[in-house]
Amino acid sequence: MALDDNWFTEPDRDIAMSLRITKKLHEEQTPYQKIEIFETTGFGNLMVIDGFVMLTGRDNFIYHEMMSHPVLYSHNAPKNVVIIGGGDCGTLREVLKHDEVEKATQVDIDERVTRLSEQYFPELCDANDDPRAELLFDDGIQYIKDAEPGSIDVIIVDSTDPVGPAEGLFSADFYRDCVKALGSDGLLVQQSESPLLHTDSILRPMHDSMRMTGFIDALTMHFPQPTYPSGWWTCTIASRDAPVSFLREEAAEEIPFVTHYYNAAIHRAAGATPEFFRRKLFA
Amino acid sequence: MALDDNWFTEPDRDIAMSLRITKKLHEEQTPYQKIEIFETTGFGNLMVIDGFVMLTGRDNFIYHEMMSHPVLYSHNAPKNVVIIGGGDCGTLREVLKHDEVEKATQVDIDERVTRLSEQYFPELCDANDDPRAELLFDDGIQYIKDAEPGSIDVIIVDSTDPVGPAEGLFSADFYRDCVKALGSDGLLVQQSESPLLHTDSILRPMHDSMRMTGFIDALTMHFPQPTYPSGWWTCTIASRDAPVSFLREEAAEEIPFVTHYYNAAIHRAAGATPEFFRRKLFA
Repeated sequence: MALDDNWFTEPDRDIAMSLRITKKLHEEQTPYQKIEIFETTGFGNLMVIDGFVMLTGRDNFIYHEMMSHPVLYSHNAPKNVVIIGGGDCGTLREVLKHDEVEKATQVDIDERVTRLSEQYFPELCDANDDPRAELLFDDGIQYIKDAEPGSIDVIIVDSTDPVGPAEGLFSADFYRDCVKALGSDGLLVQQSESPLLHTDSILRPMHDSMRMTGFIDALTMHFPQPTYPSGWWTCTIASRDAPVSFLREEAAEEIPFVTHYYNAAIHRAAGATPEFFRRKLFA
Repeated sequence: MALDDNWFTEPDRDIAMSLRITKKLHEEQTPYQKIEIFETTGFGNLMVIDGFVMLTGRDNFIYHEMMSHPVLYSHNAPKNVVIIGGGDCGTLREVLKHDEVEKATQVDIDERVTRLSEQYFPELCDANDDPRAELLFDDGIQYIKDAEPGSIDVIIVDSTDPVGPAEGLFSADFYRDCVKALGSDGLLVQQSESPLLHTDSILRPMHDSMRMTGFIDALTMHFPQPTYPSGWWTCTIASRDAPVSFLREEAAEEIPFVTHYYNAAIHRAAGATPEFFRRKLFA
């Protein structure tokens, strides 16, 4: 059957995901991108940037928890955290659930993403007034290049796909600047697309780049993300000094805040590597 | 954008998955269901039954491996295996990779599924001539009801969704018959739909039914399945006598055949329970 205008569709080359919508709530062209907000029948509100699904109210919890808690529980003392991108503030909210975080800086180039998130996804923005939070609207690549060497514990790259404005966030130059900006035992985590669709084109080159630019270890963590292409997504954690497999076990077993996807068992599970992926990356 | 006729779409209530197709290779109405086969641009051949995606050449490996290897490595000596449904023969092929399996009986009601799989998915049928394989085209519910008590080590329910012909495979009566047919330490595994979409409607009632009908433990295992609704799928293993968490560690660490998704780490990982799922099932 063909889908009528009551659906929003994001077509990838060979596979497409559609959500049934009731109305378009907003549309604007910013200096950087086109942002649309829809109301859906079953997935809450939907934010779309340049035709790509950014998040829905229903399933963003998986992505935002997996972009924040694994990397923070893998670092011994994550005090200074920088989020590159992440303008919807969902990752920032999860980061600020960690009492040991003393400062969380979000650097998104497009302020309109944040303003629209405040309006249409207010639940993601309820930590924006936390005194530890700093929201900058600026170029994340330049921010990392200018950062004081050794000053950041965890860098979270919560970006759009590696085409257009976010392309530079997947480059060797950027990773080199990250290594320099990170303190000892510093960690980087980056959203790293779909293992089914992007292992050859993105994940393998990313692992190679991370290792070439000074990270000593990298681990891809897998999780479901139903409204992203293929429904199967990853983040990749890269480490400056220690193996990524480290986990603060006791802390992760007794999480003092509410999560909906993440827990210590999920943390360990997400790092398990499917056979085809292991062969493509490490054979 | 709307999708034109070059896409096959399976709409769920709120979310839809589409595959780009080049042509329809076959269509027939059997006494049981309507079967269609398409050629896709990026996912190999596609089999559709009554409008629902059954499998594609590209991603069926995840489902078939997860329907067979976890349950077989969780049983101490899986000699006699019965597959209910599974007419495409992909699960049968994986089961027969295990040397310790002495007999594998596939009971699908519709012989045409198997004949079309032989034609359009020959790679799934390359174990059909194994002397340990028996292919029956019959009612699986009746087969289990008539089975000699205590005669089966592992029952694999590889069925369509719990609407229409497969509905009885999700009933308490069927589970009671399974418990009777299983030998000591016997295991049942059943495809159990999407945690995002079907936890309240299917997964929780299934767990309740399994425990009410004589199984002492049940564990839902999670895996990606990009062409099923939400891209996130599960199977649920139920045990007659022992905890499901048992794994033949040494055997699973040294798998003597090729897999593309499954390995021992994936086995342990698949059983990790997301927080929202734990609260819905066990709180």
